Amino acid sequence: MFETIDVERLRSGHGVKWGSVPPDTIGAWVADMDFGVPPAVSESILRLTRHADFGYPYWPGDDPVIEAFEERMVTHHGWRPEPGRARVFTDLLQILQVMIEYATQPGDGIAIHVPAYPPFLASIARAGRRIVPLPMTRGETGWRFQTEGLVEHLREQGCRMLVVVNPQNPTGRVFTPAELLALATAAEELDLVVLADEIHADLVFAPHRHVPFASVGTAATRTVTATSATKAFNIAGLRCAVAHIGPDRLREALDRAPLDFFGTPSTLSRVATVAAWRRSDAWLAALMRTLERNRRLVQAWAASLPWNPHYHSPQGTYLSWLDFTASPIGAAGPAEHLERLARVKLSEGAEFAQHTTVDTAGFARLNFATSTSNLMEILDRVLAVRS
Amino acid sequence: MFETIDVERLRSGHGVKWGSVPPDTIGAWVADMDFGVPPAVSESILRLTRHADFGYPYWPGDDPVIEAFEERMVTHHGWRPEPGRARVFTDLLQILQVMIEYATQPGDGIAIHVPAYPPFLASIARAGRRIVPLPMTRGETGWRFQTEGLVEHLREQGCRMLVVVNPQNPTGRVFTPAELLALATAAEELDLVVLADEIHADLVFAPHRHVPFASVGTAATRTVTATSATKAFNIAGLRCAVAHIGPDRLREALDRAPLDFFGTPSTLSRVATVAAWRRSDAWLAALMRTLERNRRLVQAWAASLPWNPHYHSPQGTYLSWLDFTASPIGAAGPAEHLERLARVKLSEGAEFAQHTTVDTAGFARLNFATSTSNLMEILDRVLAVRS
Repeated sequence: MFETIDVERLRSGHGVKWGSVPPDTIGAWVADMDFGVPPAVSESILRLTRHADFGYPYWPGDDPVIEAFEERMVTHHGWRPEPGRARVFTDLLQILQVMIEYATQPGDGIAIHVPAYPPFLASIARAGRRIVPLPMTRGETGWRFQTEGLVEHLREQGCRMLVVVNPQNPTGRVFTPAELLALATAAEELDLVVLADEIHADLVFAPHRHVPFASVGTAATRTVTATSATKAFNIAGLRCAVAHIGPDRLREALDRAPLDFFGTPSTLSRVATVAAWRRSDAWLAALMRTLERNRRLVQAWAASLPWNPHYHSPQGTYLSWLDFTASPIGAAGPAEHLERLARVKLSEGAEFAQHTTVDTAGFARLNFATSTSNLMEILDRVLAVRS
Repeated sequence: MFETIDVERLRSGHGVKWGSVPPDTIGAWVADMDFGVPPAVSESILRLTRHADFGYPYWPGDDPVIEAFEERMVTHHGWRPEPGRARVFTDLLQILQVMIEYATQPGDGIAIHVPAYPPFLASIARAGRRIVPLPMTRGETGWRFQTEGLVEHLREQGCRMLVVVNPQNPTGRVFTPAELLALATAAEELDLVVLADEIHADLVFAPHRHVPFASVGTAATRTVTATSATKAFNIAGLRCAVAHIGPDRLREALDRAPLDFFGTPSTLSRVATVAAWRRSDAWLAALMRTLERNRRLVQAWAASLPWNPHYHSPQGTYLSWLDFTASPIGAAGPAEHLERLARVKLSEGAEFAQHTTVDTAGFARLNFATSTSNLMEILDRVLAVRS
């Protein structure tokens, strides 16, 4: 029963709350961070709780979540959303699934960079759409994808939608303006709807810079920008997300849906989101210093490995995409091996290419948003593993 | 902006937070209560906040909200839901709109007792379905509806769905087993899907007793039971509701929808709902004593009015359905008159029959879930009104 869960235990380690691992295993596969939440977020929830103000919400004018979203895009990302196009949902997966249903038909192709967040691939497949993978390949200086011949490839594949996860999960790539422009040009040429998942936008390491897809060229009119405060501010359980819907036809189709069809976040989730976006930048700056330290730690560790992991440090996110192909545990199922042999649980790479022919079976994803000592223990255990 | 709203002001009076009324007006039209929330609800939220436990939720086994729902139906309402049929949504309006879309076609008739909660009527009309009103009429002993000829009437009207709001809003009727059986028999005869909105089930005054529609005869297989802790425990803003989906075909259709299509409540909303359903009965008992006192106060007041309001006290809910037809302010728009002349804001009766030919223009709905002194002030102001 939920309320008999020991909350101390829930927070006692990186991911151990996720049940299925033995107590001596350190988890580094879930998508939360081990850093609590911004004080303004807690305070906003405590304030409503103190006043037992859990009744029907009231706010004058626009939804405060929408206002905070529009303001933050201007102040932090140099993009001015068009008023009246943003809409609140409960989470990014919901937004993806709703847009798939409303913007495409069964059998249509949907392009997405692979490796990709597994539930995104599962959502496309379950909806009866075809995944058109844009493989992320390893160049000399980092992960890249092929922009030459992109239009022809997407046309041949019967593509109707393009999903751009930027910063990319799991490679941590922050796409350059040139890459984004190539995608936007192809989308325009083929009249694609673009779903831009920018949930990691606030987690970018200097000198890299997040560029909203909707701000590139004329992409705004075909782009659904999806974001949320849940990732950067560690409040995934609160379930509050925003979609800015650029395409007129899509917006009109959604406007014809029943008004409450997609549900709505709670008041607490809304005040927490507003507090995160409006009053938590100092916390975010401190977070980024910690993540930067951990990112370098992983990089130094990878450079020292006895096998060559061809490691490229993420430019954004708190995720490392690790190649175990040449490691002692061999090519396939490294996460399963590491859990069994080293008592460390990462995310299995194969899942990030599910339903496609892209081969990521030698990879695993590490979440490094934890304490330095915890991270060092994780890295030590991985290093010590023998097949 | 949300976070600059003065929360003290939000709680300073019955409904004044709803913005549009002048400061000297007392509101009694919103659907919240002025009684705060159960301590277990606040504590459950404070506990997660103290531990900053806002990450992705994890629970072993079933959703704890579903478990608490299934348990409460057995312990409090004598109905054992069939396992595996309950599903969490964010609110009742969402459930209504989803079921309309999945169980009926545009043009189909949907029967509902009228007067009805205005957003329900608006939802049916906006979906392009036809409202088939089942008028609530005044008998000697209370509000009733015609059960004779019901099947023929619903057949003639091309009815495909029946919405049973029980306890009924706004009349406060708690339907008897005989009335429910008449509805269930008609539903079976015509193979209707029944949406049973039982959100007020925990707010029933003795000796009346709530009977879940799904427990009547063979109704379970055609009934969607929709409920939530938000009404009885005063947490409407937290957005967490449950639908128990009896009809196989409807359940299968919903299972084919994308998994996250309808969104999901936050972790805080879930723990609050579990705390309300599992650990707040003492608070609920105290609430019912207060509501009973207020209910009698309204009844005595109605009996003493110089005009005859033909008043029937509610058997459940914290709502009074008041007839102003013979009052000094005349037949039409009493709420508008009362707001202007008496500085009291009730809900306008006409809205509760919108999109139908039923005439409720002489009525207004009063929310009596406030302090005795506030309620007395409201009643005094109404009594003193002159046209």
